[in-house]
Amino acid sequence: MLPRGRPRALGAAALLLLLLLLGFLLFGGDLGCERRELGGRAGAPGCFPSQLMPRVSPDWRLRGAAALDGDPLAGPRDSNPSDCGPQPLPPPKCELLHVAIVCAGHNSSRDVITLVKSMLFYRKNPLHLHLVTDAVARNILETLFHTWMVPAVRVSFYDADELKPQVSWIPNKHYSGLYGLMKLVLPGTLPAELARVIVLDTDITFASDIAELWALFAHFSDTQAIGLVENQSDWYLGNLWKNHRPWPALGRGFNTGVILLRLDRLRQAGWEQMWRLTARRELLTLPATSLADQDIFNAVIKEHPGLVRPLPCVWNVQLSDHTLAERCYSEASDLKVIHWNSPKKLRVKNKHVKLFRNFYLTFLEYDGNLLRRGLFGCPSQPPSGAEQLQQALAQLDEEDPCFEFRQQQLTVHRVHVTFLPHEPPPSQPHDVTLVAQLSMDRLQMLEALCRHWPGPMSLALYLTDAEAQQFLRFVEASPVLAARQDVAYHVVYREGPLYPVNQLRNVALAQALTPYVFLSDIDFLPAYSLYDYLRASIEQLGLGSRRKAALVVPAFETLHYRFSFPPSKVELLALLDAGALYTFRYHEWPRGHAPTDYARWREAQAPYGVQWVANYEPYVVVPRDCPRYDPRFVGFGWNKVAHIVELDAQEYEFLVLPEAFTIHLPHTPSLDISRFRSSPTYRGCLQALKDEFHQDLSRRYGAAALKYLPALQQPWSPARGS
Amino acid sequence: MLPRGRPRALGAAALLLLLLLLGFLLFGGDLGCERRELGGRAGAPGCFPSQLMPRVSPDWRLRGAAALDGDPLAGPRDSNPSDCGPQPLPPPKCELLHVAIVCAGHNSSRDVITLVKSMLFYRKNPLHLHLVTDAVARNILETLFHTWMVPAVRVSFYDADELKPQVSWIPNKHYSGLYGLMKLVLPGTLPAELARVIVLDTDITFASDIAELWALFAHFSDTQAIGLVENQSDWYLGNLWKNHRPWPALGRGFNTGVILLRLDRLRQAGWEQMWRLTARRELLTLPATSLADQDIFNAVIKEHPGLVRPLPCVWNVQLSDHTLAERCYSEASDLKVIHWNSPKKLRVKNKHVKLFRNFYLTFLEYDGNLLRRGLFGCPSQPPSGAEQLQQALAQLDEEDPCFEFRQQQLTVHRVHVTFLPHEPPPSQPHDVTLVAQLSMDRLQMLEALCRHWPGPMSLALYLTDAEAQQFLRFVEASPVLAARQDVAYHVVYREGPLYPVNQLRNVALAQALTPYVFLSDIDFLPAYSLYDYLRASIEQLGLGSRRKAALVVPAFETLHYRFSFPPSKVELLALLDAGALYTFRYHEWPRGHAPTDYARWREAQAPYGVQWVANYEPYVVVPRDCPRYDPRFVGFGWNKVAHIVELDAQEYEFLVLPEAFTIHLPHTPSLDISRFRSSPTYRGCLQALKDEFHQDLSRRYGAAALKYLPALQQPWSPARGS
Repeated sequence: MLPRGRPRALGAAALLLLLLLLGFLLFGGDLGCERRELGGRAGAPGCFPSQLMPRVSPDWRLRGAAALDGDPLAGPRDSNPSDCGPQPLPPPKCELLHVAIVCAGHNSSRDVITLVKSMLFYRKNPLHLHLVTDAVARNILETLFHTWMVPAVRVSFYDADELKPQVSWIPNKHYSGLYGLMKLVLPGTLPAELARVIVLDTDITFASDIAELWALFAHFSDTQAIGLVENQSDWYLGNLWKNHRPWPALGRGFNTGVILLRLDRLRQAGWEQMWRLTARRELLTLPATSLADQDIFNAVIKEHPGLVRPLPCVWNVQLSDHTLAERCYSEASDLKVIHWNSPKKLRVKNKHVKLFRNFYLTFLEYDGNLLRRGLFGCPSQPPSGAEQLQQALAQLDEEDPCFEFRQQQLTVHRVHVTFLPHEPPPSQPHDVTLVAQLSMDRLQMLEALCRHWPGPMSLALYLTDAEAQQFLRFVEASPVLAARQDVAYHVVYREGPLYPVNQLRNVALAQALTPYVFLSDIDFLPAYSLYDYLRASIEQLGLGSRRKAALVVPAFETLHYRFSFPPSKVELLALLDAGALYTFRYHEWPRGHAPTDYARWREAQAPYGVQWVANYEPYVVVPRDCPRYDPRFVGFGWNKVAHIVELDAQEYEFLVLPEAFTIHLPHTPSLDISRFRSSPTYRGCLQALKDEFHQDLSRRYGAAALKYLPALQQPWSPARGS
Repeated sequence: MLPRGRPRALGAAALLLLLLLLGFLLFGGDLGCERRELGGRAGAPGCFPSQLMPRVSPDWRLRGAAALDGDPLAGPRDSNPSDCGPQPLPPPKCELLHVAIVCAGHNSSRDVITLVKSMLFYRKNPLHLHLVTDAVARNILETLFHTWMVPAVRVSFYDADELKPQVSWIPNKHYSGLYGLMKLVLPGTLPAELARVIVLDTDITFASDIAELWALFAHFSDTQAIGLVENQSDWYLGNLWKNHRPWPALGRGFNTGVILLRLDRLRQAGWEQMWRLTARRELLTLPATSLADQDIFNAVIKEHPGLVRPLPCVWNVQLSDHTLAERCYSEASDLKVIHWNSPKKLRVKNKHVKLFRNFYLTFLEYDGNLLRRGLFGCPSQPPSGAEQLQQALAQLDEEDPCFEFRQQQLTVHRVHVTFLPHEPPPSQPHDVTLVAQLSMDRLQMLEALCRHWPGPMSLALYLTDAEAQQFLRFVEASPVLAARQDVAYHVVYREGPLYPVNQLRNVALAQALTPYVFLSDIDFLPAYSLYDYLRASIEQLGLGSRRKAALVVPAFETLHYRFSFPPSKVELLALLDAGALYTFRYHEWPRGHAPTDYARWREAQAPYGVQWVANYEPYVVVPRDCPRYDPRFVGFGWNKVAHIVELDAQEYEFLVLPEAFTIHLPHTPSLDISRFRSSPTYRGCLQALKDEFHQDLSRRYGAAALKYLPALQQPWSPARGS
């Protein structure tokens, strides 16, 4: 009688042989070497064809979901969702799907938004996003989702900094740093009642409905807890170069850019201890992790292969150089998820990269407003504020000639604050931030503005999603702009026909971090000395603390494009006398700035007070907590005048600064102003807005508001400014 | 023994009962009335709940494909492609799908492009588009597809005007006119070997892969030849108002916005005779068709019910007011095809309209360049020219500092000629078209330009797909622009970082239809009299026929935004003497126009000849067949100078016109110019372009080209113009 071990041994041998054979068929060709996000080190010397190692389940890698059911005949088309082989059912309509993402910093926040757009485009289910963020990402994403108001999307935030102690003991060479390791602690971080979650890297793009991915949970055996796609590189096979010693992994290992987590099972299995033990043990012989969480996940899986559920490769097509991904997608008739895990990201070398890049660019430039759409017949809590907004919009009369104005005033614009990396200025008691707003056609002003204003700036940009990318490239291409970390750019996404000038000003104002703000316009260049001079004046005058005042910066204009900016008040006055400069709007609308009293300013040695007069619209410096601009004034006209009225009504005194000045440069009139000039309706609507504005003033200031009535009743001259 | 008829009679009665019951369940609620594209007449008085009429197959309407297989339990989710009930397999990977569309005129051409974008976005199969077009649509779509270069898309054109006689005998009230009827003659028009085709209206948007629709051919019985979705309105039930008498139809009838045609079977069945007989008979009692082809299709089907294969409603969700469509999509978890068949189109009242509109806007504004992507592993003939282009691009060196220039020069931009309705000017022997190019930031110039130039214009606009829609709204909102039918707008879609100024000029030039062209720039306003004066001068001087000459229009500039345009040469000279005007670029680059000899022009009574001198770049009038602009000059610099060199090299004489003038208005410097000023690399690349340009000149003109060498070797001053 044969020893019982024998048959098993034979079976094992046969299996090994089969694996080797299959491995040979699949990977006989020449293979490059490359790994997940290894800084610049991809394409390092010493690449060899992969060694043929047995791996978990050799037959699923190049197959679709069907292969998971072990159908030996399952062909590439099995990964097509319309293909009705053993393809799993999608989750019941309207089931809530959970997604977790770790995100830190300004750049990752932009990446996450593109990922989310691709997810929302294809999704048909309600989603709950669990975002583990640092303070920067949280501020950005909280504002974004709050203003985005996407139906059937819930967002929860988790403080990444609180999690740091749990992973900070692990030495890590990967550029993602500590944040890269935080996926390991999700089972303990996410709510205890949460049983399943899809975990995604930020460099992922969806090309299909995430519900199909969620449906793969159904394929987990009773013990499997982690769904992963195999690595599409040879990194974990080792020997990529001399002394290349990766962390232990099953064969080619798994990529953790896309993970299906059964949190409930991991908690039961004591995941917290499990991964820590493994990591500690490996770190006795290995100096650090190279690929952050991925090294540890793979080491744990090597030790507990029963935990892993291999997923079809199309759910994490890894676009690295010389990647094996092509073996996957070239046979699939369909593509599900693209993972930009090459250090070169979009510039990765891949003969299909254009196709993949187009998927990415589609969502990068996609108008996120279009994703504010409900789901078919899935009852869902409308986003906060959305309901009232809908009612207000519904009450508007489409036949009202001012309908466009009403609609624009009610529009909630998506806001992406600190779109680019930004260093808040060190807090100083008298510091002042230049506040302004612009759209694409004023980008050219930014470099000059940076040269004239060395201090912090808070700028709101009114852009489409696509323009935001052009803007990004513009800043990167400009050494002057790229050098400035103290300029905060806040993107407000375009929606509606009228320019929401005051909403933009309020966004920039709200994001200013210094105690004082200089409320300017983008087509003005301040005196070179203004920043220093303002801070000194604020201190001397005890602005804010001792006095409730608005410091007036006298405004001038040149009608020539090329003129040499006066280095001092003396030169300014010379140009003024020579007729090369004028006081602002001298020809069209002197009233706007007359109260500044330019004659007195010429001689003034000290700040002097002036009285409010109808139509006064000076450029002023005020404490950050000043009244906001009235958002009802959209498009063109009365937007700044109304704000000055508000300051006067709140009894700010107006103090003109003797050495301060700012100069308006000529520019093509905006579309809004030309439209205004040509349309009596437009003027009529503006008058209506002014009447309503005055009613509000009376409501808030009572009799004191009577003072403003005549000004508000004046008919509007197209010639005048804003 | 019972008569044989009895059981059948009983069965029929039972069926009728079932139908009534079902009809009641489905249509018990209140129903509006509305029909397919009935001008403004939707919502006419006299709407009644639908009568409960038996219809072909009562159970499929609210079901997905599954219901086609008669699965009685098939629920709404059966229409979900990922749902693996009896859902049909998609067509084999890479099968060629055929689509036919009838399209006439400028506006329908824009619609078709949006439809095609939605189709291309989701498609995974090669497509062959069969476009039945009038001359206008053909010119637009041929240029578009030729420059779009989408892989795996073939386009064939069929002349709609040739088909008119086949349908012109049918009186038709529908606004689509004769073209609306042409779907009837497709079986005889499309190639005899073509067996199957999907026929689409132009107001269709895809929200899924058209291959899934194609797959429904598999459900046809051996005799069925026409796949249609039932009408989602009560039009064919009649009684919508007093004397409302629709054409005959089975119950609610079918909507012909989406048709699956088995051309082979229709030909066999003698379709040509079949529909003509039916139409002739009905027209004995009915005055005309109200819904064009749809009335006749329905009448034929009523007579030959065996021909029709009912399709699941999600394949033609008809968004009319009070439509029954909601019964369809609200139960479907998925949406396949949206049909904007309300007269109000996007403004249709529907509580989900925002969701549907967002699908439409997605593709309306979608960057069509992103659809230039190949298919997974489907071998396909690359579009003509694409292969050479790829090779040329592949040969570029990404490290070359001028890489951006090289790439931009090679870029083939998608071109949509005559984007808006346009009436070609009546052909006149001395007529002249103003040719210019612009981007979004110069739209404000158009109204003024129209006031100054009453003649034909050919303008190239460099826009994104989204900007093209803003432009459309801008023109519609401007009475001045909307009134002009002789201004042709050609949209060239943005791609790449550098402004392809000369490619744009060449597009506008190529589309000019008069024998002469005035080559201007968008920021110039011509003298009010210039159009008449030029035509007179062209005749007197026998330009083109007797003399090979370029007529020079002297250029001036104002540095002020608001100035009163001089009505005559006398006033112009007065302003010049007063310093309110200057000769063009007087301050920065007088050399550009010095050869025009302004001193002589002051006194001149007759045209006078001038010699070419280095850097000369006048604005000229030439025959339409003049040399093209050199497309290698992209971005900023040398683009016009090079063209003048070319004219001189081809021995055009330069004749200055004594009464002609044009004035440059100030504008914000373009991004390109600011970029140029700040970048030595940019200047270096421009020099390289000039060198290559001169090499080409030498090649073409031999020793004669030596004359231009010094000019081309001059280093470039940032101050100078274009």
